[in-house]
Amino acid sequence: MFFEGSEKKAEVIINNNNFCLLNDVNDSFWQELVACCNAQIISRISNENCKAFLLSESSLFVWTDRFLILTCGVTTLVNSIEYFLKNIDNSHINQVIYQRKNEYFSHAQLSCFSDDTKILAQHMNGKAYRFGEMDSHHNYIFHQENSFIAAPEDKTYGLLAYQISEQASRSLTTPGLSAQCIRDFFNIDLLLPGFLIDDFVFEPYGYSLNAIKNDKYLTIHVTPQAMSSYVSFESNIDLVELAAQILAVLQPASFDLLSFNELDFVDKVQANISSDYISKALVKQTLTNGYFVCFANFIKPQLHFSKPAQLDLTGEDHAL
Amino acid sequence: MFFEGSEKKAEVIINNNNFCLLNDVNDSFWQELVACCNAQIISRISNENCKAFLLSESSLFVWTDRFLILTCGVTTLVNSIEYFLKNIDNSHINQVIYQRKNEYFSHAQLSCFSDDTKILAQHMNGKAYRFGEMDSHHNYIFHQENSFIAAPEDKTYGLLAYQISEQASRSLTTPGLSAQCIRDFFNIDLLLPGFLIDDFVFEPYGYSLNAIKNDKYLTIHVTPQAMSSYVSFESNIDLVELAAQILAVLQPASFDLLSFNELDFVDKVQANISSDYISKALVKQTLTNGYFVCFANFIKPQLHFSKPAQLDLTGEDHAL
Repeated sequence: MFFEGSEKKAEVIINNNNFCLLNDVNDSFWQELVACCNAQIISRISNENCKAFLLSESSLFVWTDRFLILTCGVTTLVNSIEYFLKNIDNSHINQVIYQRKNEYFSHAQLSCFSDDTKILAQHMNGKAYRFGEMDSHHNYIFHQENSFIAAPEDKTYGLLAYQISEQASRSLTTPGLSAQCIRDFFNIDLLLPGFLIDDFVFEPYGYSLNAIKNDKYLTIHVTPQAMSSYVSFESNIDLVELAAQILAVLQPASFDLLSFNELDFVDKVQANISSDYISKALVKQTLTNGYFVCFANFIKPQLHFSKPAQLDLTGEDHAL
Repeated sequence: MFFEGSEKKAEVIINNNNFCLLNDVNDSFWQELVACCNAQIISRISNENCKAFLLSESSLFVWTDRFLILTCGVTTLVNSIEYFLKNIDNSHINQVIYQRKNEYFSHAQLSCFSDDTKILAQHMNGKAYRFGEMDSHHNYIFHQENSFIAAPEDKTYGLLAYQISEQASRSLTTPGLSAQCIRDFFNIDLLLPGFLIDDFVFEPYGYSLNAIKNDKYLTIHVTPQAMSSYVSFESNIDLVELAAQILAVLQPASFDLLSFNELDFVDKVQANISSDYISKALVKQTLTNGYFVCFANFIKPQLHFSKPAQLDLTGEDHAL
């Protein structure tokens, strides 16, 4: 069974003078917003800074001045953003950022990035970029263009691991696996000391985790199936520094790093990424909204021949 | 302007006891067959062994015992193969091989590989494979399963170059470029001494070349646009041995080699591919139809940061 793990991602930042997303917007609004992209809220944790919702397809985090939503599968995240734009007074909105990465099964998606940005462009001025080459891993980023400038300390990180090792894939597809087993597999206690955690094991495979501590968050989404395995980490804690630990567990054939406002990206990569990995793509740009964005794709050179994947002619194993 | 250069490819082999594709099938049949996938014949060359048609989307070669067709863009090649199966007595058919590589814009295609193989499987028993990982360059291969076994000397080669150098892309998108200029660019006289050549320069960009000599063929298809550049070489002459010459001209960021029945693939790669390129994928298998298939993807490591591609929000430059 194949599943499109690759997430669409959006962050909306508001000017919280007279309006606070955490207190002035109730959960039924978020439920409605999530439903617009064909996802559902599974569970919720919160602290004084943040509410974190686990979704049937990924995650939603809400702070006083912003929300972040990631959705995978064939969800239509742009519809959720449009719902927000239509229901919240636009004078509150400082910034909309919408991202989409290349999918495993892009032919099965209900829209492509350019379809999505056409919708967003009806509501705001914006710019769009592709970080990475078309024939390889790439991230599309759309952002609103206005007077908003991101604070330098507003840093976020993504680590996206592809084609995890056979052993990791086998461990994560073990029937009857408990959430605790998966936490242990990722050494969550070591990775996230003192975080409040909410996680869910999907049937037959798949795992999602939300973790929060003060205003810090980390979310992990696991699509462990051998032929299209994908594990994503998104956080405002420094994932480049944690990369070695994560890569040791997953041993992916390829992974991407995407950072916003990490000025020491190059030095940190040098210090934390093993020379077993070769950089296939390195792209950076300071966007006009102030974010300094770095994208890197790393691959492990292949030294030995493997066998091809044999496909079921019913098409079950190579279409979504 | 974007164009999907990636080809779908099919080869059909017949038992030419009482039936010869070269003499017993007329050009109007091929015209009809080509029309089934929404392509057209532009021109034709021939010698005593082979007819070579240049198509509006790629090429068709016909020999006494087989034909080979490659079509790019959003053509539906499987429909042409179905036309052949419905109009030629199936007792003549020894083998059908149908291939498709990952596209730049797979969401814009009218079908995916599994859709195509479902159609083929209605007419024959077959097997299907994916050579290469889902998140990276890969080739899908379907072949008929019957008693046919390929002759060891039946060798073919593909060299597929992606993201050619800026200089190569600029040269090949020069307005008013003549076919002779492009032949000179590729050093065709050196590459193909004594071959009969038919070529065509498309508006505003693009170039196709068919070359034949006795039963040998080579076809080149060029999609030179910087953001999605792609140049393919398909031949029954040894492209691994010619690779260094081709790569020196195009300097692609990445390229694939695909060979049928090249037993010395590994040694030839070692001898002919510069160590500037790293192997990202190496896959081999002897298919039950006797073909020994090797697939390799090579990349040039990226050592310096580049800028992202800025996209037009009308979507013109990132959708087909």
